[in-house]
Amino acid sequence: MTQSVQHILAEALATGALRIVDLTHTLSPDFPTLVLPPEFAQATPVKIERLARYDAAGPSWYWNKLTFSEHTGTHFDAPAHWVTGRDLPRNTVDTMPLDPMIRPACIIDCSRESAADPNYLLTVDDLLKWEEVNGKIPAGWWVLMRTDWYKKSGAEYANLKDDGAHTPGPTEEAIRWLIKERDIIGFGTETIGTDAGLAGNFSLPFPAHNLLHGAGKYGLQCLTNLDKLPVKGTIIVSAPLKVLEGSGSPLRVLALADAE
Amino acid sequence: MTQSVQHILAEALATGALRIVDLTHTLSPDFPTLVLPPEFAQATPVKIERLARYDAAGPSWYWNKLTFSEHTGTHFDAPAHWVTGRDLPRNTVDTMPLDPMIRPACIIDCSRESAADPNYLLTVDDLLKWEEVNGKIPAGWWVLMRTDWYKKSGAEYANLKDDGAHTPGPTEEAIRWLIKERDIIGFGTETIGTDAGLAGNFSLPFPAHNLLHGAGKYGLQCLTNLDKLPVKGTIIVSAPLKVLEGSGSPLRVLALADAE
Ligand SMILES: [Mn+2]
Ligand SMILES: [Mn+2]
Repeated sequence: MTQSVQHILAEALATGALRIVDLTHTLSPDFPTLVLPPEFAQATPVKIERLARYDAAGPSWYWNKLTFSEHTGTHFDAPAHWVTGRDLPRNTVDTMPLDPMIRPACIIDCSRESAADPNYLLTVDDLLKWEEVNGKIPAGWWVLMRTDWYKKSGAEYANLKDDGAHTPGPTEEAIRWLIKERDIIGFGTETIGTDAGLAGNFSLPFPAHNLLHGAGKYGLQCLTNLDKLPVKGTIIVSAPLKVLEGSGSPLRVLALADAE
Repeated sequence: MTQSVQHILAEALATGALRIVDLTHTLSPDFPTLVLPPEFAQATPVKIERLARYDAAGPSWYWNKLTFSEHTGTHFDAPAHWVTGRDLPRNTVDTMPLDPMIRPACIIDCSRESAADPNYLLTVDDLLKWEEVNGKIPAGWWVLMRTDWYKKSGAEYANLKDDGAHTPGPTEEAIRWLIKERDIIGFGTETIGTDAGLAGNFSLPFPAHNLLHGAGKYGLQCLTNLDKLPVKGTIIVSAPLKVLEGSGSPLRVLALADAE
């Protein structure tokens, strides 16, 4: 008789053999949002409007009205977010399969490089070096780029200069390789986009968005606490809101890792 | 050497030994929202406003702006939602502990009773009868009331009459017993509230909200697909958005169950 996995999981959570780590920023009005060139529609910041708080508008209860874009705070990108993914089947958060919502991850530590150079770009070489130590990146896993960027806040986090945001991200080659040679489920970062801040100027603009979503892969952004996880095998729980025809959504991202 | 639980979990998901079931309604403008007496603040329906869709406002991308209340669609209630929980520690979705976000559940089938009587109330007797067959409800688990109500839609789902919503829910005694005698983590339903539609008129109004949140317990509402799950032991993944001082939030609820 095979053992019940739901039972093993419940036991591991109850005993702490499996720990839960929150990879999510607080969704608040002062969290920086993406800034696009002025000719394009912009993300409005998060709005939290009180409906009632134990007062005349609701004597026994408290609740708020929420406004934000689908790509605000810690959030998930579905293939329909990019024009390259527009004609793929089940390309929105309400129609996508469920299994990508719970997948293991490889975490590539680029924290030193990103501290030295805010425009640091993750290369295929970095990935091959990671594999030398940790083994091959398995198909269907997330690859998450650790930069410790989540420890910054406000203007330092957005790091906007006259020519755009100076934040790290992947090279076109690295993304191409992760899709073609490793068949990952998606790519995640701690910064505002899956792409580097200046990726709009790359020869292929926004290669992460362009290539990932064109290949039916997913994105995760504004992650936190990647430095608190093992570099291989932690389970990422990232279930976006089921927004009708949604291109993505803010979400609570949790990681499940063996106790240390 | 103990086996890695993250590895067991990854394997079980990859092989289908553990299946994922979506317990979430699509978040769309036509999903019914709670209707309160007119003197109180109301939930606005879901608004999905296009920011850009491969057009002049964003030639390569598609995204929307979202507006909804914290208690819209399939959603999570934190203790601060009710006045009885207002002074509890870590009583909002951004400060609450993480471990309630992944917990097993007992599912109590009241579908026949609710079909016969839309105002059906779950009793302590029902719970004791469930325990005779399935064993004691374990401490720290969810109790979810199955009514198959999720199969209805629109006006039939809300079931509003002149005197309020006619939808099933728990008795005060059942909730009291689940908290005091079984120490559950929370209570969930397929209807718009954790309380019955007419619970505002009970001798203790809104007993589920009042008692659960006063005891630091959680609520889940507008769940779907409870009929597709085993009655005991399925793992509920219910991680609310990390809204600053949020009283609750729409969320994607997933269930993890052993393959049949
Ligand atoms: Mn995005
Ligand atoms: Mn609610």
